[in-house]
Amino acid sequence: METAVEFRNAVREDLDRIVEMLADDMLGKERERFEQPLPNFYIQAFEAIEADPNNELIVACLDGEIVGVQQITFTPYIARQGSWRATIEGVRTAASVRGKGIGRQMISWAIERAKERGCRMVQLTSDKQREDALRFYGQLGFEATHEGLKLQLE
Amino acid sequence: METAVEFRNAVREDLDRIVEMLADDMLGKERERFEQPLPNFYIQAFEAIEADPNNELIVACLDGEIVGVQQITFTPYIARQGSWRATIEGVRTAASVRGKGIGRQMISWAIERAKERGCRMVQLTSDKQREDALRFYGQLGFEATHEGLKLQLE
Repeated sequence: METAVEFRNAVREDLDRIVEMLADDMLGKERERFEQPLPNFYIQAFEAIEADPNNELIVACLDGEIVGVQQITFTPYIARQGSWRATIEGVRTAASVRGKGIGRQMISWAIERAKERGCRMVQLTSDKQREDALRFYGQLGFEATHEGLKLQLE
Repeated sequence: METAVEFRNAVREDLDRIVEMLADDMLGKERERFEQPLPNFYIQAFEAIEADPNNELIVACLDGEIVGVQQITFTPYIARQGSWRATIEGVRTAASVRGKGIGRQMISWAIERAKERGCRMVQLTSDKQREDALRFYGQLGFEATHEGLKLQLE
């Protein structure tokens, strides 16, 4: 029996918790700066996402507490007969709730949201070091047909 | 010596040529419908891209002819200290100009544009069947650190 979570758009007051979850991660702990007060670059990013109708930062809540976060970007493309795609990024669940099916509900929610927005594909990239995540997405029907290539700019 | 190409934002009059290039491709030939008049879904997609300040459809021109196309999407993320990323998609060069360094100039242009827009990463996914493309991106410094996962809807 899965624990049922609720989903909503993140608000500014959620940002501390979101950054805390991003930092509490195998790869994120090296990349993020979870400090009080929160560094301004996180606030600027939040405001840019909030202002963009093609980006949604979604939190998953359980008994009023945030236990998950993900960002969904909706993009129109000429290719594939002018179809829109949804890209999921920054998926994290709180360590305290792992194994309760919350990640599965988050991705299922994102897929339904993508359909509502008229997308014909949902896509994401996942670091090859995240073996559990790759297995998880495979179980949800995602196919690893592509290489995910990254180039860091200083 | 590379042939120097010029870059600009695509306009509506370029769309036939863009779809023609997308269709003239190992994978695109199965996916696209290059017909006259152009199916309306391509026109709607073009208009959606044109209206979105975080999407740019770029054509590469040689002696006034379009010889390449790519789309760049700029996305703000909370992760990685609130950094923006540029995602390149739908990269195609005309069959007639392959081997002239045009693809390399297109990606170099996209990287510079990403820097102008304040991005800290350039990313793309490439079908694992496109062995030449994967080698090409590796030569340009991209690292295949991620799996690119796709889920088709309906």
